[in-house]
Amino acid sequence: MDFEKIMAQLRPPLKQRLVVAAAEDDMVLKAVAAAQQRELVDPILCGDPVAIEKLARQWAVDISHMEVVPAASRAEAARTAVSLVRRGHGEILMKGILPTAEFLRAVLDKENGLRGPGILSHVGVLHSPMLDRTLLLTDAAMVPYPDLKTKAELIRNAVHVARGLGIHTPKVAALAAVEVVNPDMQATIDAAALTIMNRRGQIKDCIVDGPLALDLAVSAEAVQHKGIRSEVAGRADIFLFHNIEAANSTLKGFVFGGGCLFGGLLVGARAPVVVASRSDSDHAKLYSIACAAALTETTSAIREIHVEPVDASPRRQEGVQSAVN
Amino acid sequence: MDFEKIMAQLRPPLKQRLVVAAAEDDMVLKAVAAAQQRELVDPILCGDPVAIEKLARQWAVDISHMEVVPAASRAEAARTAVSLVRRGHGEILMKGILPTAEFLRAVLDKENGLRGPGILSHVGVLHSPMLDRTLLLTDAAMVPYPDLKTKAELIRNAVHVARGLGIHTPKVAALAAVEVVNPDMQATIDAAALTIMNRRGQIKDCIVDGPLALDLAVSAEAVQHKGIRSEVAGRADIFLFHNIEAANSTLKGFVFGGGCLFGGLLVGARAPVVVASRSDSDHAKLYSIACAAALTETTSAIREIHVEPVDASPRRQEGVQSAVN
Repeated sequence: MDFEKIMAQLRPPLKQRLVVAAAEDDMVLKAVAAAQQRELVDPILCGDPVAIEKLARQWAVDISHMEVVPAASRAEAARTAVSLVRRGHGEILMKGILPTAEFLRAVLDKENGLRGPGILSHVGVLHSPMLDRTLLLTDAAMVPYPDLKTKAELIRNAVHVARGLGIHTPKVAALAAVEVVNPDMQATIDAAALTIMNRRGQIKDCIVDGPLALDLAVSAEAVQHKGIRSEVAGRADIFLFHNIEAANSTLKGFVFGGGCLFGGLLVGARAPVVVASRSDSDHAKLYSIACAAALTETTSAIREIHVEPVDASPRRQEGVQSAVN
Repeated sequence: MDFEKIMAQLRPPLKQRLVVAAAEDDMVLKAVAAAQQRELVDPILCGDPVAIEKLARQWAVDISHMEVVPAASRAEAARTAVSLVRRGHGEILMKGILPTAEFLRAVLDKENGLRGPGILSHVGVLHSPMLDRTLLLTDAAMVPYPDLKTKAELIRNAVHVARGLGIHTPKVAALAAVEVVNPDMQATIDAAALTIMNRRGQIKDCIVDGPLALDLAVSAEAVQHKGIRSEVAGRADIFLFHNIEAANSTLKGFVFGGGCLFGGLLVGARAPVVVASRSDSDHAKLYSIACAAALTETTSAIREIHVEPVDASPRRQEGVQSAVN
C-alpha cells in the first residue's frame, strides 16, 4: 500500500487546529508532531505542562511550535479542550491519555459539550490494498446495538465522512448475514427498511441497498454468481453493520488479516473527534488525523442541510459511552 | 499463498467416499472430479443419471470412475445420499444442486438422518496468507444466535475440526467487541462463562479465553500494547462469534479483503458435510472437500468421548435451517 499516495489525497486546503485533551503521553505527542510536520494540523495541547515538556524532551519530540494550555487534571483537560473547540479556537478534537468515558463526558455534556443535533457515532476508515479502495465501517465502537432510527443516523454520519473524503454519493451496504429478508433476522428487516427510506428521500446524499452479505457488498464476482441486481452490490463505500460485534470483528479482520490502513473517527459532534488507540500503528494515527482534517471544511455545511434532530438518540447515548474501546 | 502446500498437509491417509446429494450440476461435478483426481475422495453421485451423464459430456468431466445412484427427485437424492452415509457406504456427505433447507431436512431427519448427539454447526476454515496460519470461524451460516449452552457446543464442534486438521489443543477466542466484561453486552458475559467452563473441565480438549476482541485474538503486538495476559490472545485457532452477523461478515472480510483460502463445513452430524457455494472459487471447493476428508478418520473416536447429548439443541435447530446461505 502506498501510504504517501493515500495521505497526499487527503491534504486539507487549510491547515486545521487540532486540540488534544490530556496530551501528556509520548505516543500522542509523536503522532501530533508528525501531523504538524506534514502540515496537516497545528496542535494545541491541553494538559499538564510539566509532564508534556518532560515527555517531549525525553522522546525528542519538537513541540516548540505547539500551544500548551494548562489543565489541573485530565478531566479538566477534556473540558478545556472541548471548550476551545466549542468557542471556535480549534477545528478538530483529539483524545489524549484519559479514560474514554471521561473524555466522552466532556464531549457529550449538554451545556458545554460539542453535541450536534444527531448522535455521536464511530466511523472506521479503511484503505484496503487488496480491494484498492477506501471503505467506511460503522459502528465498531460507539453505538453497540442501533435500532432502525439510529441506523439511519449512523448512515448520515458516515455519508458525511465519505463526502469529506471525496466520495460524493457514497454507496451504502446495509449488511446482514444473508441477502434475503428473513423475518427471524432483524438485520435483514432493518436493511430493507433503510433501503426504502433512502428511496423515499428519508436518507439523502447516498444510495442504500440491503440486506447484503459482505461478499455481495465488495465482490463484483460474488454479485454475478448470485445474480443480484443492485447499484450498491460489489462496490459499496459504506458498510452499515447490525451490531458492534459484527462491525468490530470485521474492521479488525480487515486490519489484521487484510493489511488495511485504519483511521478511527467519532462524528456527529460539532467537530470531528480523533480517537486513536495506543495499539494503532503510527501510520494509523496519522491517517486518523488526516481524515479528520479532510472533514472539517465540510462539517458545518452538510450538517445544517440534512441532519434532522432526533431527540431520543442523544439521550439514549448516555448509556453507551463505555462501548468505545 | 501456496495452495498446493496447504493441500499436501491435508492429504488423508485413506481415500474417503464422498456421497453427493443431487449431483446434476457442472460446478459440483468439476469439484468432485478434481478431488478424485487428487485422490482425496471417491465420489458417489446421487441424482438424475441422464442429467449427470449429459453435463459430464458437455463439460468434459470424467465420471467413468464414479458410482451413480439414481434418484427420482432432488429431495429423494438427498434422502438417498444421507441413507448411504448412514449405512456406512460413504464417509462424507456433500450438498449438490438443491435448496439448502431441503438438503438439511434429510440430514436432520430424526428417523433416517445423520444427527449426532449434539447440534449441527458451520465451521469456516480459513488459511490466511498474511497471518500464515489456519483459523476456524463459527458460526457464519447455521446457528444464527447461539445462547451460552449452544456456544459450548459450537466450540466442541470446532475443536473436532481443529483436531482433524492437526491442531491438537486448539486455542479458542470467545470474541466480543471489547476485552472487558460489560453487563450490557451479552457477548462479553457469555465469553467469561465459557472461559470458566473450560477451566472447570466442562469444555475439553482446548484452551478457551474471552472476552477478546479480534485484534487481541490474532495479533501479538496488539496483546502487548494492551497488556493482556492470556494463553489464547495473539494466537487463537478458533474464533467463536456472538452472532451470525459478526461471524459472516468477518469470514467474508478475511476472504474478500484478506485473500484467505476458504473451506466450509457443517459438523456435528455423524459425518462431515460439505456445503460449497456456487460463488466459492474452485480452490475453495477443493479445500472444503479436503478438510472434510481430514476429519473423517477422527470423527467417531472424538465424538464418542466428549460430546454429551443436549436434548434442547437439536430441537431448537429446526427453526434455523434457513440461515444457511
